Amino acid sequence: MELDEVTISRAIVAEQSRILLEYLDVDVAVVGGGPSGLTCAALCAEKGVKTALIERKLSVGGGMWGGGMMFPRIVVQEEARRLLDRFGIASSEYAPGYYLASSVESVAKLTAAACNAGVEFFTLVSVEDVVMKGDGRVGGLVINWTPVEMTGMHVDPLTLACRYTVDATGHDAMIAHMIAHKGGDLPIRGERFMWADRAEAQIVGHTAEVFPGLVVTGMAANAVAGEYRMGPIFGGMLLSGEQAARVVLDGLGR
Amino acid sequence: MELDEVTISRAIVAEQSRILLEYLDVDVAVVGGGPSGLTCAALCAEKGVKTALIERKLSVGGGMWGGGMMFPRIVVQEEARRLLDRFGIASSEYAPGYYLASSVESVAKLTAAACNAGVEFFTLVSVEDVVMKGDGRVGGLVINWTPVEMTGMHVDPLTLACRYTVDATGHDAMIAHMIAHKGGDLPIRGERFMWADRAEAQIVGHTAEVFPGLVVTGMAANAVAGEYRMGPIFGGMLLSGEQAARVVLDGLGR
Amino acid sequence: MELDEVTISRAIVAEQSRILLEYLDVDVAVVGGGPSGLTCAALCAEKGVKTALIERKLSVGGGMWGGGMMFPRIVVQEEARRLLDRFGIASSEYAPGYYLASSVESVAKLTAAACNAGVEFFTLVSVEDVVMKGDGRVGGLVINWTPVEMTGMHVDPLTLACRYTVDATGHDAMIAHMIAHKGGDLPIRGERFMWADRAEAQIVGHTAEVFPGLVVTGMAANAVAGEYRMGPIFGGMLLSGEQAARVVLDGLGR
Amino acid sequence: MELDEVTISRAIVAEQSRILLEYLDVDVAVVGGGPSGLTCAALCAEKGVKTALIERKLSVGGGMWGGGMMFPRIVVQEEARRLLDRFGIASSEYAPGYYLASSVESVAKLTAAACNAGVEFFTLVSVEDVVMKGDGRVGGLVINWTPVEMTGMHVDPLTLACRYTVDATGHDAMIAHMIAHKGGDLPIRGERFMWADRAEAQIVGHTAEVFPGLVVTGMAANAVAGEYRMGPIFGGMLLSGEQAARVVLDGLGR
Amino acid sequence: MELDEVTISRAIVAEQSRILLEYLDVDVAVVGGGPSGLTCAALCAEKGVKTALIERKLSVGGGMWGGGMMFPRIVVQEEARRLLDRFGIASSEYAPGYYLASSVESVAKLTAAACNAGVEFFTLVSVEDVVMKGDGRVGGLVINWTPVEMTGMHVDPLTLACRYTVDATGHDAMIAHMIAHKGGDLPIRGERFMWADRAEAQIVGHTAEVFPGLVVTGMAANAVAGEYRMGPIFGGMLLSGEQAARVVLDGLGR
Amino acid sequence: MELDEVTISRAIVAEQSRILLEYLDVDVAVVGGGPSGLTCAALCAEKGVKTALIERKLSVGGGMWGGGMMFPRIVVQEEARRLLDRFGIASSEYAPGYYLASSVESVAKLTAAACNAGVEFFTLVSVEDVVMKGDGRVGGLVINWTPVEMTGMHVDPLTLACRYTVDATGHDAMIAHMIAHKGGDLPIRGERFMWADRAEAQIVGHTAEVFPGLVVTGMAANAVAGEYRMGPIFGGMLLSGEQAARVVLDGLGR
Amino acid sequence: MELDEVTISRAIVAEQSRILLEYLDVDVAVVGGGPSGLTCAALCAEKGVKTALIERKLSVGGGMWGGGMMFPRIVVQEEARRLLDRFGIASSEYAPGYYLASSVESVAKLTAAACNAGVEFFTLVSVEDVVMKGDGRVGGLVINWTPVEMTGMHVDPLTLACRYTVDATGHDAMIAHMIAHKGGDLPIRGERFMWADRAEAQIVGHTAEVFPGLVVTGMAANAVAGEYRMGPIFGGMLLSGEQAARVVLDGLGR
Amino acid sequence: MELDEVTISRAIVAEQSRILLEYLDVDVAVVGGGPSGLTCAALCAEKGVKTALIERKLSVGGGMWGGGMMFPRIVVQEEARRLLDRFGIASSEYAPGYYLASSVESVAKLTAAACNAGVEFFTLVSVEDVVMKGDGRVGGLVINWTPVEMTGMHVDPLTLACRYTVDATGHDAMIAHMIAHKGGDLPIRGERFMWADRAEAQIVGHTAEVFPGLVVTGMAANAVAGEYRMGPIFGGMLLSGEQAARVVLDGLGR
Repeated sequence: MELDEVTISRAIVAEQSRILLEYLDVDVAVVGGGPSGLTCAALCAEKGVKTALIERKLSVGGGMWGGGMMFPRIVVQEEARRLLDRFGIASSEYAPGYYLASSVESVAKLTAAACNAGVEFFTLVSVEDVVMKGDGRVGGLVINWTPVEMTGMHVDPLTLACRYTVDATGHDAMIAHMIAHKGGDLPIRGERFMWADRAEAQIVGHTAEVFPGLVVTGMAANAVAGEYRMGPIFGGMLLSGEQAARVVLDGLGR
Repeated sequence: MELDEVTISRAIVAEQSRILLEYLDVDVAVVGGGPSGLTCAALCAEKGVKTALIERKLSVGGGMWGGGMMFPRIVVQEEARRLLDRFGIASSEYAPGYYLASSVESVAKLTAAACNAGVEFFTLVSVEDVVMKGDGRVGGLVINWTPVEMTGMHVDPLTLACRYTVDATGHDAMIAHMIAHKGGDLPIRGERFMWADRAEAQIVGHTAEVFPGLVVTGMAANAVAGEYRMGPIFGGMLLSGEQAARVVLDGLGR
Repeated sequence: MELDEVTISRAIVAEQSRILLEYLDVDVAVVGGGPSGLTCAALCAEKGVKTALIERKLSVGGGMWGGGMMFPRIVVQEEARRLLDRFGIASSEYAPGYYLASSVESVAKLTAAACNAGVEFFTLVSVEDVVMKGDGRVGGLVINWTPVEMTGMHVDPLTLACRYTVDATGHDAMIAHMIAHKGGDLPIRGERFMWADRAEAQIVGHTAEVFPGLVVTGMAANAVAGEYRMGPIFGGMLLSGEQAARVVLDGLGR
Repeated sequence: MELDEVTISRAIVAEQSRILLEYLDVDVAVVGGGPSGLTCAALCAEKGVKTALIERKLSVGGGMWGGGMMFPRIVVQEEARRLLDRFGIASSEYAPGYYLASSVESVAKLTAAACNAGVEFFTLVSVEDVVMKGDGRVGGLVINWTPVEMTGMHVDPLTLACRYTVDATGHDAMIAHMIAHKGGDLPIRGERFMWADRAEAQIVGHTAEVFPGLVVTGMAANAVAGEYRMGPIFGGMLLSGEQAARVVLDGLGR
Repeated sequence: MELDEVTISRAIVAEQSRILLEYLDVDVAVVGGGPSGLTCAALCAEKGVKTALIERKLSVGGGMWGGGMMFPRIVVQEEARRLLDRFGIASSEYAPGYYLASSVESVAKLTAAACNAGVEFFTLVSVEDVVMKGDGRVGGLVINWTPVEMTGMHVDPLTLACRYTVDATGHDAMIAHMIAHKGGDLPIRGERFMWADRAEAQIVGHTAEVFPGLVVTGMAANAVAGEYRMGPIFGGMLLSGEQAARVVLDGLGR
Repeated sequence: MELDEVTISRAIVAEQSRILLEYLDVDVAVVGGGPSGLTCAALCAEKGVKTALIERKLSVGGGMWGGGMMFPRIVVQEEARRLLDRFGIASSEYAPGYYLASSVESVAKLTAAACNAGVEFFTLVSVEDVVMKGDGRVGGLVINWTPVEMTGMHVDPLTLACRYTVDATGHDAMIAHMIAHKGGDLPIRGERFMWADRAEAQIVGHTAEVFPGLVVTGMAANAVAGEYRMGPIFGGMLLSGEQAARVVLDGLGR
Repeated sequence: MELDEVTISRAIVAEQSRILLEYLDVDVAVVGGGPSGLTCAALCAEKGVKTALIERKLSVGGGMWGGGMMFPRIVVQEEARRLLDRFGIASSEYAPGYYLASSVESVAKLTAAACNAGVEFFTLVSVEDVVMKGDGRVGGLVINWTPVEMTGMHVDPLTLACRYTVDATGHDAMIAHMIAHKGGDLPIRGERFMWADRAEAQIVGHTAEVFPGLVVTGMAANAVAGEYRMGPIFGGMLLSGEQAARVVLDGLGR
Repeated sequence: MELDEVTISRAIVAEQSRILLEYLDVDVAVVGGGPSGLTCAALCAEKGVKTALIERKLSVGGGMWGGGMMFPRIVVQEEARRLLDRFGIASSEYAPGYYLASSVESVAKLTAAACNAGVEFFTLVSVEDVVMKGDGRVGGLVINWTPVEMTGMHVDPLTLACRYTVDATGHDAMIAHMIAHKGGDLPIRGERFMWADRAEAQIVGHTAEVFPGLVVTGMAANAVAGEYRMGPIFGGMLLSGEQAARVVLDGLGR
């Protein structure tokens, strides 16, 4: 068989157009592909929910790649270790209750799990705004290519409809801020100083539907709640992603 | 148990320092974490070879994340499909002999395989130069932090010793160019126009030890050989990574 | 009828995907949407040739918008005036043989004519390389999104096949330079000083198939031929576009 | 005839100086060359009103070139289709009530219509401020070259007098903001979330003289009114441009 | 003996990792290596207090290197001259009560004194946040590499515990601002106009524990107190550093 | 009288358009408004020659404003002192044969003299190319706005005809380099090390018509001749400007 | 005589150091070298007042160089024409009461007049802050090199004492804003829309000592007063400079 | 005593002007304040030689501050340890023959030693060119402020005369390259790969007067000689600085 450049290009365009058309209307749109977003997306999709993960960068994984100060290791506490095991991420005990894992392995295995569950990824896509109608519920996202946004070009966006939006954008809580900024009733208290213990203890409780149709998870949950900042520890992130999936699945009646 | 910020930090620093000290002397250093580098590293490590993968960016995966023109799909031809299967990457046939896979899944599963095999990753690390002594063999790499390099700060590098270096840096063939630039006898012919069929057909043959201690793989192999450029197809990359592993393992007598 | 955001998005994605798939294989690909490229594309398409115009910027028109030093007027000499008339562009005589027209009107009407003739436009698309096989003929273009290129992101391109490529990229003669740079036998002499009369007189003669499958037009033709530079006058550009169309139509046997 | 560079330059300078001097005092100055601005300008000029269109970029067309996420297609709803027909823009029905058109053709034909009607274009010109005197009516615009503004050079502006100013600057509603910023009584409510149906339904009503001498149109009208944001649909833009022309013509007693 | 690159690298990594692990928990963390920070750190360490100095730049010395308008000389008044003598910095009298010293010598000798006293330096390290728990006391610093921060990379920080933090960051009073910004009860009045005499007279009095666990010194002390700005004179800086050391030593019961 | 903004704008546009049209054809075009260019232009215009001075920056004066290392004083040797006197620039003797003057005064008075003589200034105008025809003589300049060039916008230039061009662009010898770069027979030797005495002694001799229609002056003359570099002394610059005027006047038969 | 590089350097350093030492204490410091600053400085110095003009750029002249939209002409009304005559600037009548002059000539002759009067210029010097003591009067300026400020280097400033400061910094009214920003009782109303007639009529009245020791002139005067913006007309600037000189001279009892 | 801002400023200006005038003519100018430059300068000045050290940055110390990959430790081999001792720098043995020291302490103590010996520092000063006359010997340096150079401002330099120039600019060997670039007979072979042992062994031998009046030291010596690159080890640097001092002292007959 002789390989043909145009057939290769057609394969890519045809497949991704088909998927894009199919995924312009989903059950859940998770915004942000860090540890809590990946966990939430994987657990939703495992239950058969049609799930899109939207990531503004070229790669998913977020702050997990860099570990602490570029030392690519992460720490997870006792309660979250079962999630490492669930995703097949190797860990070793450093001190009682503190488990070490590789940053790179953690990202790879979480992402692989999401793929296996059927999550569809839209990388290099930024969210510009939300769709909200008379019912006052977040019903969709206004999206554009990240490189278009970075170059400041004047190109209009498209829209994607979703029954639930999960804000997994970290400290910035970007979707929550869009709503607050345009007058939606969603007070954002802002993250406080670092206090790892308290932050980890509270994060699952703050993971909730904070506005009709909008669930916050991970650092975004703490930022909205005005909670303390976490240390370089990722257990709460995974647990919060799990909780976000639970909230969404309940809402969808699964 | 109350979580303590300093214990978390100590865990990360202690573990990564230990690994860094251990990996300042390795069997193989693969430079570049794209598809051919990941494949090569995974297959070397599976044979028990002490393998470090050095990546200048925060995340591995290289050009595979973006698919073709940001449509995150890749195409693989018949001959390479068994490697997709080996790494557990799902694929579907688009036309006879052309298989489609997800970009994100491909990166995640290749990386997971490398982790499982025991590859150690050094991300955000750039190679500045090579170590070469009187025996005229590449014997190590001169490395620095990528953010240091990007900000142009005057900070000296460290060195890492290795028995084999694999240049998996893509078009740029960066390690090969360092050697050519400083007068090593390594003519670099430069990549030619695109001709997918020919490029794919030749790439395994061009994957070789082109200088004592230096193996080139993936697009770097074609760039050194003056071969044609590939289309947006990744089969040859995987096969070339497999071949690079074979060359290294032979050299090490495994 | 209630307007639905997702239907609007689907309409756009479905239509443009269809067109993109159809136009990954064309008769003529004109690179550059300045006056000579637009003229050439319009005249080819009028004869039923399947024509794609690839423009790296957001808008077509090139240097014609800005007139001379931001005074948005252009000058056309006697010989080319019939082309202004053909495209419905109003003009007035300034001095015997010198006709003035509006820059904005000239761009708008040339573009409208190309649309009417059936040219398909691919804006914000850059050409990275050409496809060339054993027959030594330019057989396709390697393309990518301009914003991807501008942000330096690592995203692979796609390919578009074409029987003829028209280099209408102006002074830079970008396609011609790609071929020369990778060793194709295409000497580029480079534009000389300004000498309007001579440049205008010679440009039609230099518009030719300078490499198998590659026709140069407009300022690119003079740049390859080592001809003089034109003054702020656009007659030769239009005539050269007309000549390029003739060369292509002949080659295609129309 | 031998072409002479200086005659060409003189033709351009003489013609544009004449026009600039003539157009330093106009009936209507439309600021912004996107779809609503072009429509408004074309319809005013068709009635014999002396109309200047001021555009800060090199080319007119605004956000229409890029379609939705760089897929160069636009959608227009039933009510606005007659305007596509009026300007000779081809369209096809995608779903009942949703019509597709080419982005490039839409810009070209709208612009050509404005040229035919006698609109005079001032591209690469930015508005720095407005002229307002004791009568509290916007009576002119303070203008400068865009490249001067971009390079931050200290060069003073000129002024252009006009009986009506049309703010067609999109989301930013730049002229309205200048007035609000300097204490004029013009509350700007700011655009809300996206809700295509409602935004389209209301835009014509919001197109009005919001301050003595200042008419807002297109997205600027919705931004001032605190109305919802449109989807990637252009019907309302065209209808709003038509309405803006009606308001101006009424004001001028035409 | 033959020098080995890897042994050299191992020596550096092993030593600094050991020190970093040891210094993740200190008595005093001085933030900022200008004259007041260096003085404070030196005097604390001389008393056997475990002291870390954190500096965001590659070199310590701060504004002292540049003298006044790049003339590398500093002036010190009578009261502070004994500190110059204590650190071995040569000075000469310019006018009664005004002593001149070399900028370069002043930095070198202050730094040498801090080294001799046992201060440990962490250069190229930025403070991102503070650790604060239920007791409402600053108990640690959240740190990251400066080049990471400069390149805007998404890499998580580590934490360092300390019993006292000294804010010696100059005008910006960065640590104090972090606390004020996140709602800590620490009003910052901001530096006033320049009035050298008054500023110098008051600075020692403003050097104090302004928040539990946080001592301000040097220009940061005046900035928090709303005091006047100093002239290009460094006596007060040194005296303030001495006073900060006194406050810390008292707090630690030394 | 009530001041009217539009009358003010019209006055400026009408006057400068008139001058621009008149000066698109001149006797001498001096490129660069530093000391040698100003001197040459002033002395040519004093003899009734139609002279345009083209300066790429907003202000004329060049390197003279900054004196030596921002100390705004210049030094002139004995031979050139009569030129200071001629232009009314005050000077004082520092050492035998070395005269000091104010940088600011020198620029102001040289410029004032050029204005009095009738030189017309075109500031913010860059030279892109030269006009050269079959006779092989530089016959004109291809000019554009500097801000257009700085922003990289695609705007075409205009042309200005001249009987003589004086390259007074300093070290860069920009016009000479344009000719050399496009194959004109004009070898440029490049400036050598600094040797003030020799450079000053030779500069008048190197001021000459180095190519038909092109006279070099000031540092451009030494750069073309491969002569030594001057110290921070301006006598030779003034003498060279005077000599350039002589060469031009001779050429024009005045 | 053989020219010696070191003697030249010594002459410059010795002279400017002498002047700098002498001018660290002046009667009047005029900040900003535009038309009103130059006029004020010239008229003060003519009366024997020790006057320093501080300009942040390399050249003086401000916005006057660029005329209106890069057309280098200025307009002056009847009342101010006598000031053009006083400084020897040629003018011609365009319409009754509107006089045209060359931008370049206006700058050169105003500057020459200031030099003749004995003004000392400090170019490339920026004002960072003011000196203000218990008497609540602006008594000096805190200055630094502009290139230091532009590169963000950490270099401390020096101080210059003055009995009067004239803020001639244009729209920005920089000195007035420094005082307002640090809590001085100086309300700044901000410039309003453009209304040339009214702005010109009021500017002399607004030129006043607005804070003990601080006189505002030119556009800074209108900006502080909340007055209308001027058109591209410079008469008011010159008259305001004259008035500022009067205020200062009165204050100094001359 | 009441502190006066102007007296402080005068003290600084007067002192540094005096020193600058005195040091415009020196015995030795060391360019570059890294370890070899500091050592050389200190040892020259200790013998009573008038020595200036010119450093382009704000601080001296060069690459020594950053240790290896931001781990602020340096390694020194046996032979060079006596120099650490001589300058009072503490060290500890890591492995036989490998001694560790603190980066910060090393810079501080080397600099303090140079100050004690009487070296005069000119920081923020860049070398633009050299002075060379008929005798073909480097006789001086053409210097400018670094911030002026960084901002690309057009400001002329000053000159400093010296009997010997020491190029201690590291890899770049900047002074040597200036001479080679302008045609001086000084072949520069360029640094080769890293081979710590060989590089250290040869560096003292390559420290020599490579051109009349120019001595190279440190990495510049190896770069000129085409020698191997050093590892992150500083012994050779110190020994080379010592050797450079010996060469200069011999040349001066001390």
